[in-house]
Amino acid sequence: MAHKSIVLTGDRPTGKLHLGHFVGSLQQRVLLQDTHEQFVMIADVQALTDNFEHPEKVHENVLEVALDYLAVGIDFKKSTVFIQSMIPEIAELAIYYLNLVTVNRLQRNPTVKNEINQKAFGESVPAGFLMYPVHQAADITIVKGTLVPVGNDQLPMIEQTNELVRSFNRIYNVNLFPEVSAALSSSPRLPGIDGTGKMGKSAGNALFLSDEADVVVKKVMSMYTDPTHIRVEDPGCIEGNTVFTYLDIFATDRVHVADLKSHYQRGGLGDVKVKRYLIEVLQEVLEPIRKRRALYAQDPGEVMRMVLQGTHVAREVARNTMQEVRSAMQLNY
Amino acid sequence: MAHKSIVLTGDRPTGKLHLGHFVGSLQQRVLLQDTHEQFVMIADVQALTDNFEHPEKVHENVLEVALDYLAVGIDFKKSTVFIQSMIPEIAELAIYYLNLVTVNRLQRNPTVKNEINQKAFGESVPAGFLMYPVHQAADITIVKGTLVPVGNDQLPMIEQTNELVRSFNRIYNVNLFPEVSAALSSSPRLPGIDGTGKMGKSAGNALFLSDEADVVVKKVMSMYTDPTHIRVEDPGCIEGNTVFTYLDIFATDRVHVADLKSHYQRGGLGDVKVKRYLIEVLQEVLEPIRKRRALYAQDPGEVMRMVLQGTHVAREVARNTMQEVRSAMQLNY
Repeated sequence: MAHKSIVLTGDRPTGKLHLGHFVGSLQQRVLLQDTHEQFVMIADVQALTDNFEHPEKVHENVLEVALDYLAVGIDFKKSTVFIQSMIPEIAELAIYYLNLVTVNRLQRNPTVKNEINQKAFGESVPAGFLMYPVHQAADITIVKGTLVPVGNDQLPMIEQTNELVRSFNRIYNVNLFPEVSAALSSSPRLPGIDGTGKMGKSAGNALFLSDEADVVVKKVMSMYTDPTHIRVEDPGCIEGNTVFTYLDIFATDRVHVADLKSHYQRGGLGDVKVKRYLIEVLQEVLEPIRKRRALYAQDPGEVMRMVLQGTHVAREVARNTMQEVRSAMQLNY
Repeated sequence: MAHKSIVLTGDRPTGKLHLGHFVGSLQQRVLLQDTHEQFVMIADVQALTDNFEHPEKVHENVLEVALDYLAVGIDFKKSTVFIQSMIPEIAELAIYYLNLVTVNRLQRNPTVKNEINQKAFGESVPAGFLMYPVHQAADITIVKGTLVPVGNDQLPMIEQTNELVRSFNRIYNVNLFPEVSAALSSSPRLPGIDGTGKMGKSAGNALFLSDEADVVVKKVMSMYTDPTHIRVEDPGCIEGNTVFTYLDIFATDRVHVADLKSHYQRGGLGDVKVKRYLIEVLQEVLEPIRKRRALYAQDPGEVMRMVLQGTHVAREVARNTMQEVRSAMQLNY
């Protein structure tokens, strides 16, 4: 049995999506939906693993994420967008996978280790957090995903998934689940507007896809540049200068950007001028997104209806997979 | 909101049930079904946590356990007998509970610790085994169980369940789940026919409810008595003498048992005579069980239909509970 190529991707509904998501994954999905069968999961169950005390935050952001998807051009007729918690087959499969992995193996997962340190759980790591890679394997395999767009830091998750796929197929003597490949993003990681690290939903350094035009102006104007570039006539540095990093990513007029860079480096070009240009560039990217978002936001009921329709489709796929799982595990009575 | 009294009990389908089950739990269930709402779970998901490589064993024994239930007089119209794996809501709820318990807490569970040592997993404890108490909490609370018949060794499971009940109700500000009480069995633990420890399905020391009359004879004749009681005229010891332990539990003619005991203690009563009497006593207990079992075993399809009917009822209850859980966790879209 050959397995066809199926993409599984998604986001945790813990906040609105931002330019970092756009560059890192959303653009890619818009392309992938034309060439692949694509499932896009709004991962509310995963979001709850470290937001279980704030279910309202997760609830609200399901709609926001769906709006962001529609805004960037994810076509709900081409991509199957679904809500994770409405596919109980994922939980079922995860429970069976838990038999096929040891506690030690989970504790060695570098991604989980890292995130546990970041979140400073100390001695109080929720069990749901530790076992999350197993749940993720169920997310992917319930739709028989073969291709998962991830960052480098998520590669151990793919490895864990493949270990489970191989164990399941071997123990139950089936070829039910395909192995999964990571589609590593070729796009550079977008720094936050403060120039440090990665743009993050809750880091206060994000340019959201839903930010109004005036907010974009304000955020770009506050962006981190070269702190030693004080007077206009001073030569400025473009390395690590967030404004130029953004221009490299978003500006289509490469010649003009090259001109700006050399002018900035030799001195005589003020930050404000470059920022004004970046604002122009970003508004061009964001304006149509913002417009589409505003349009869809007028009828949230209809957006949720679309999400529930996708969820219905995903549920059928999940049901079929679980039927095969039951059959393999002799759980059909 | 007051919670009504609901019993949740059950067995792992890893073998046929034996006299130890009869004394320890089955008899109690036959009484409880007249006074309580009672759910009896055939715990195939739990059985798989340490039998995941032998799904056929679990599959086959679902029917055997159902036959044993019918044989001892569990009335499927009074008790809701159901198959665990067919209630995916349990898995769903377990996944949410995993957020409310820490890995350290699970590793401190004395019952799990004990069983991990017994099974000699070494460094390879399956994650499903460690998190099993969480799954068990979901088993109980999905039907809003309030009373769980357990042995002393299972008390930590009840405690874990109540911790989860309290956490869930507090965090989501509901009174959805009732606290659970342990119904400690007052009946003595039945030793194996070899006189050592506890009667066990796979210990080779069990008298199964389904054992034919001649097997019962053979097993009783091989039973452990007093190894120093060699000649008939020797005085014998009744303490730790399995035949007398069984007589104490099963014989209704207390006077005759008292006579036998004193005769045995002063000498002149042979093991074979006492065993013949025990055989008589046990056949009286087992004969109607065996007959009913044989009757039902003629139509396994009908028995499974009855189990599936109970499962359907339990599923409706579980669905309602999960709807309340979703509502509490704002997972209703």
